[in-house]
Amino acid sequence: MMKLTLPGLVLLFSCYTNQSYCKNDLNGNNSMNSVGKHGEISAKPFEPDDYKIITSDRADGRYVSTRGFVQYLIRNQQPQLAFDPQFSKQEFLQWQKKVREKMQELMKFPDVTPQPLPKFLSSVKREGYRVEKWEFYPQSGSVVPFLMLIPDGVSAENPAPVALCLPGSNRSKEQLAGEEELNPVFANSKFNDENKMAKFYAQEGIIAVAVDNPGIAETSDLEKYTGKIVYDRTTFTRYLIDMDWHYMGFSAFQSHQLLKWLRTLGFIDPERIVLSGHSLGTVAAMYLAVLNQDVYAVVYNQCITRLIDYAKVRTRPDSIGRRPESSWLGHSVPGMWKWFDYPDILASLSPRPVIFSEGATLSDIELIKRAYHIMGADANLAVYHYPMYQDCRNRKHDYETIPEGLDHKEFWEYYNIDGHHHYFKADVVVPWLKDVLKP
Amino acid sequence: MMKLTLPGLVLLFSCYTNQSYCKNDLNGNNSMNSVGKHGEISAKPFEPDDYKIITSDRADGRYVSTRGFVQYLIRNQQPQLAFDPQFSKQEFLQWQKKVREKMQELMKFPDVTPQPLPKFLSSVKREGYRVEKWEFYPQSGSVVPFLMLIPDGVSAENPAPVALCLPGSNRSKEQLAGEEELNPVFANSKFNDENKMAKFYAQEGIIAVAVDNPGIAETSDLEKYTGKIVYDRTTFTRYLIDMDWHYMGFSAFQSHQLLKWLRTLGFIDPERIVLSGHSLGTVAAMYLAVLNQDVYAVVYNQCITRLIDYAKVRTRPDSIGRRPESSWLGHSVPGMWKWFDYPDILASLSPRPVIFSEGATLSDIELIKRAYHIMGADANLAVYHYPMYQDCRNRKHDYETIPEGLDHKEFWEYYNIDGHHHYFKADVVVPWLKDVLKP
Repeated sequence: MMKLTLPGLVLLFSCYTNQSYCKNDLNGNNSMNSVGKHGEISAKPFEPDDYKIITSDRADGRYVSTRGFVQYLIRNQQPQLAFDPQFSKQEFLQWQKKVREKMQELMKFPDVTPQPLPKFLSSVKREGYRVEKWEFYPQSGSVVPFLMLIPDGVSAENPAPVALCLPGSNRSKEQLAGEEELNPVFANSKFNDENKMAKFYAQEGIIAVAVDNPGIAETSDLEKYTGKIVYDRTTFTRYLIDMDWHYMGFSAFQSHQLLKWLRTLGFIDPERIVLSGHSLGTVAAMYLAVLNQDVYAVVYNQCITRLIDYAKVRTRPDSIGRRPESSWLGHSVPGMWKWFDYPDILASLSPRPVIFSEGATLSDIELIKRAYHIMGADANLAVYHYPMYQDCRNRKHDYETIPEGLDHKEFWEYYNIDGHHHYFKADVVVPWLKDVLKP
Repeated sequence: MMKLTLPGLVLLFSCYTNQSYCKNDLNGNNSMNSVGKHGEISAKPFEPDDYKIITSDRADGRYVSTRGFVQYLIRNQQPQLAFDPQFSKQEFLQWQKKVREKMQELMKFPDVTPQPLPKFLSSVKREGYRVEKWEFYPQSGSVVPFLMLIPDGVSAENPAPVALCLPGSNRSKEQLAGEEELNPVFANSKFNDENKMAKFYAQEGIIAVAVDNPGIAETSDLEKYTGKIVYDRTTFTRYLIDMDWHYMGFSAFQSHQLLKWLRTLGFIDPERIVLSGHSLGTVAAMYLAVLNQDVYAVVYNQCITRLIDYAKVRTRPDSIGRRPESSWLGHSVPGMWKWFDYPDILASLSPRPVIFSEGATLSDIELIKRAYHIMGADANLAVYHYPMYQDCRNRKHDYETIPEGLDHKEFWEYYNIDGHHHYFKADVVVPWLKDVLKP
């Protein structure tokens, strides 16, 4: 990795700084303005690059702009349970326990009254496996449908591993299973063939359980009546937050309840439970793996990002002064930044087998590798990049930390994300999973 | 008030129920569907009224739709610190203390290191008062400008009451003060004359302190450089939530810190501190009044709504199946619905003088009146409706509880909101305030 002290980079950073100081000359946001005085308006057109890094134009460095002050808070946010690469094995284990306990708090799973057992609804035969449809009852008032793909020959005498498959944002369980959508409006043809995660697993002798993301496909609202996809998960997510919950906790809770039942099935090997997420599904998989120590392995088919970086460095405004927006509200776990970010949580999964099949920044890969090394489990970690970044010469590496002032596209480049090829990487995941599940 | 048992209303509700059951015939969201089967699609066009009330089509009443289940959660939400009109005075006081303690938790005010004293910047003379510009430092990294309108003749020997004025959503402190905007883009001509709250107070001998809403006008981001208003408070609000805070707590904290300093000024009567909010500003005023027991009176220039009702009853979809969205994220205090709703919080202000100058539902007015009656302070509560609803015959009264299935406009009607005339009601507020502040 190149160091900040190299001339080219110093120049780059100085350049940013100069640009930001230039704002003094144009700045109407000067608290010394007398009452009623117009801010000075520059004759020169607005130049987004002049404002891409949020700076204070005051000698005391304080921010008048609320967005500026929030940036100050973000820069100073120090997650209290961040993974420390200097941990001894003993310290790692103590920290891992604290992460799990904090995660239990943050996920806010409700205490629920006893619910009926899941109910079998139907079954269809496919080549090499059958697809069963079931529904389960995570808590009063709620019913959640799911599919279970059971390979031929699996029985109590011949139990098999199970993979709970969690789909990408607006994908259905039927899509994961390679089955016809319940309603044509739920279909999403993009990478439809690539994303049949559950089907691929079933074909390899792994029991695959597939669920919908809350609010999507069979669990959506009026789309099946209107024939129009207007998925609004933000509104009910907001209501969940006001009721002291959140989308990811809600989603993880449903799968958490399902896992309890899966463990009781005689034909499932309870020591070979896998959580497999694609895109949005990786997030619930990650939280669930922390909470359920008996989960054997995790498939994380999404680039590992940092939520705090995502907020902090994406600040380059567009031509009318709009900076990039925050991610979808469903990702928000209120208060989580005080404690840890995604790479910390993922590091806490060591020494369990995990595959990251769409890469990360080099520093986060090093960080998580370190967690596996501390636990003497280097071999349990597999990392693959997007195909275009598999050649390390294509990866961005001439930086120490990701600079502020990026737009969304530049952010992706630093994270080695080839967003147009975001799909389930069966070619690397399936062989890896078969291998780690070998008896 | 008419009772639910009257034939007309029973009919109304049955009608809703029948409509919802009709959905069984069209419903593709039936968990008995076999795998891969298409949902049945109705030949008849989508009729929003058929779906305006969210119902389950299952015998067990459970919801497959996540929006449906969240509706179930909202319906069953029972705020644990709701005001009980049966309270004795003693019980009321105990409850009031619990509300305050819970509010302290929910607002999440940070512990801050000592900050510099507020700094005087400039002063201009107006007829009967002067306008001083100051800035203060609520916490490290932050500076907040404010205006202080000081009536002629006010001094340590002749102290005056003070009103902290909190503006509507996208209005500036300059607008409240009747001063020229710092930048022409911050101007909002609608009800500009009516909303000069701080100026009106100063003209009546009340010291008026005016602040911006966080992220607006002088505290905004790039608007002063672009000349275009693209206020994005949602993104930084989301970041605040992820950092375990929220917009209202942030806003209230700033004013809370300002209040501490105002109390120390010799020319201010610390026993006559008023919080005066218009629109969004009422919310911070309400929270601050709960937390600061020495606040003498509150001006609440906004219809009293219920957040939980706002979520629960606004469910009528539009022609393509979109139900009304949640309110702006800045209103969210994560977890607050577990404890209380706005009318409960407002009831807890009894026996302090409060004016509600844009009405409420009749039942919430009765509820809050009851809180004042319990405390023997009926005269301290003043309620005025929007002009068009001042004649009680214009108010909706033929219902016991507000029914679900409303669109936004219908919701306003139940709350007696004449949204096109939402401005500071100086005609009722100023005389009332002068009266309650009389020595």
